[in-house]
Amino acid sequence: MPADLHNPHFEEAVRESFARQKWMHVLGAELLRIAPGEVDLSLSWRDDFSQQGGVLHAGVLASIADSACGYAALTLMPPGSDVVSVEFKLNLTAPARGNEFIARGRVLRAGKTISTTMADVFAGEVLVATMLGTMMRRNG
Amino acid sequence: MPADLHNPHFEEAVRESFARQKWMHVLGAELLRIAPGEVDLSLSWRDDFSQQGGVLHAGVLASIADSACGYAALTLMPPGSDVVSVEFKLNLTAPARGNEFIARGRVLRAGKTISTTMADVFAGEVLVATMLGTMMRRNG
Amino acid sequence: MPADLHNPHFEEAVRESFARQKWMHVLGAELLRIAPGEVDLSLSWRDDFSQQGGVLHAGVLASIADSACGYAALTLMPPGSDVVSVEFKLNLTAPARGNEFIARGRVLRAGKTISTTMADVFAGEVLVATMLGTMMRRNG
Amino acid sequence: MPADLHNPHFEEAVRESFARQKWMHVLGAELLRIAPGEVDLSLSWRDDFSQQGGVLHAGVLASIADSACGYAALTLMPPGSDVVSVEFKLNLTAPARGNEFIARGRVLRAGKTISTTMADVFAGEVLVATMLGTMMRRNG
Repeated sequence: MPADLHNPHFEEAVRESFARQKWMHVLGAELLRIAPGEVDLSLSWRDDFSQQGGVLHAGVLASIADSACGYAALTLMPPGSDVVSVEFKLNLTAPARGNEFIARGRVLRAGKTISTTMADVFAGEVLVATMLGTMMRRNG
Repeated sequence: MPADLHNPHFEEAVRESFARQKWMHVLGAELLRIAPGEVDLSLSWRDDFSQQGGVLHAGVLASIADSACGYAALTLMPPGSDVVSVEFKLNLTAPARGNEFIARGRVLRAGKTISTTMADVFAGEVLVATMLGTMMRRNG
Repeated sequence: MPADLHNPHFEEAVRESFARQKWMHVLGAELLRIAPGEVDLSLSWRDDFSQQGGVLHAGVLASIADSACGYAALTLMPPGSDVVSVEFKLNLTAPARGNEFIARGRVLRAGKTISTTMADVFAGEVLVATMLGTMMRRNG
Repeated sequence: MPADLHNPHFEEAVRESFARQKWMHVLGAELLRIAPGEVDLSLSWRDDFSQQGGVLHAGVLASIADSACGYAALTLMPPGSDVVSVEFKLNLTAPARGNEFIARGRVLRAGKTISTTMADVFAGEVLVATMLGTMMRRNG
C-alpha cells in the first residue's frame, strides 16, 4: 500500500462510520481494536440472538464478521472513502455459545477498488465462524 | 426425493422451528410461504437495520436469507430432523432500500445429510442479494 | 442496462477473448451459445479430468463455470472491456459423471465495474455444480 | 481430534488418493508436504494454463487449492475414509504469474463428517488466491 494513499486518520474514519451503523447499536457490538488492516469487534451474548437450537443465529455472526471485514478494509483506504460489501462467505465451525464473541477482521489484499478480507469469530478460544469476503471502496 | 423420506408435516415442522428462532422475532420476520423445497420470508424495513449508508446491513439480509435457505431444506427432511447451516455466501446486488423485503429460499439439491440451497432477496422487484448455502440435517 | 453502454458486438468480443484462453483449449471446452447476459460452454468427458473417485475434479467444473460466468458478464460490458474474476463459490451437487457437461452462465446483476453472475453445470439433466461469482470489468 | 480416530498412516492415505487423481497428473501438481491438518501442493507454470490475459486461469488455481484442502482434511480422518468436496470459495488476490505456485491447505475445524478448510496459493511471496472450503468424509 503506497503510504501516500493511506489515511493517517484511519481510526477516526472507522469510528465515525461505525457510529452511523445503527445495526451495530442494535446488536450492542463495540469496536475493540483498530489497526492498519485489522479491526476487532466484540459482541455480548443475548438470548434473543439465538436460532432454534439456542446458539447465535448465523445472521448475527455474519453481521459482526461483515462489519469487521469492512472496517479492516476501510483502514487502508484513502481519506474520504466509504466501504461497501460486495459479497462474503461464512463458514460455521462450532456451535456459537458463550458470553462474549470477538470478530477479528483483517485485510488479505488491499486493492485500489476491491479488497479481499477475512474475519474469524471466536467465543473465548473457540473459533465459531470464519468469513472470507470482498469489500469495495466508494467515494464517501 | 423418495416420497417415503419426506415429512408429510413439513409445514408444521417449519413453523415450529421458526417459532423458536428468537432472532427472527427480533427482526420481525414472518413466514410468507412454505412449500416442498421452498420457503419465503418477509421483513419490514426498520431504520435501525441500517449500515452507515442508510441501507439494510448485510447481516440483516444474511439473517433472513439463511433462515429461508434452512427452512427450505427442512421441508425435504424426514420427520424429527433439525437443520443447521454449514456455510453460505451472500452477494449484495443492489442497495437494499424499500418498505418490505422478501427472501425466497429454495433447495437446489436435497441429500441425505447435506442440502444445497439458494435464496434471492427482493425489495419489490429489485434483487438486492443472493445467497448460495449449504445446510445439514441433524436428528432433532 | 442502458443500450448505449452495451457492446453491439458482444458475440465477437466473447469469441475473441475465449480464443485466447489457452486453458479452455486444454480442456477442449467450446462456446455453445452467446446471448446478452448468458453464455453456455460445453465440455466432453475425458478420463484424465477425474479425481480419486472417478468423477470430474471440482477444478475442472470450476474452470468451465468460471469462464461461463466471466463471458456472460462480458456480453453486457462496453466495447473494449476485459473481464477478470474477483471470486467465486462452487457447490458440488451431484457426482459429475457423463459424456458431456454444459455450463450455463448468466448475469444476475450487471454493474459498471462489478457484475454478479451464476453458472449451473449439468451432466445431461442432472445439476452437478452451481457457481455464484463476482466478475470485474477492466479496460482491455 | 481424539487420537483414536486419527489415522496413524495419514501420509500414505494422502499419497495413495493423490496418485489416483488423474487431474493432478495432467496439471503436473506434486505433493510437497503432508502433516496433520496441513497439505502443500506445488505446480509449475505452463503457458497453456492461462486465461485471456496470460495469467493462470482461476480453474487451475481452484484445482490445486481444492486438492490441498481435501487432503489436509483427509489427514485428520479415520483410516479407510475418502474425502469429497462439498463446496469452496476462491478469491483471486493478485495476477497469478510466476514459475511455481504453492497451494497451502489447512484444516480450520475437523468434524466427524464435515471439515472446514482453507488454502492459500502463493507465487513466490505473493498471495495470488485464497480458498475457504467445506470437505466431507465418506467411507472409502
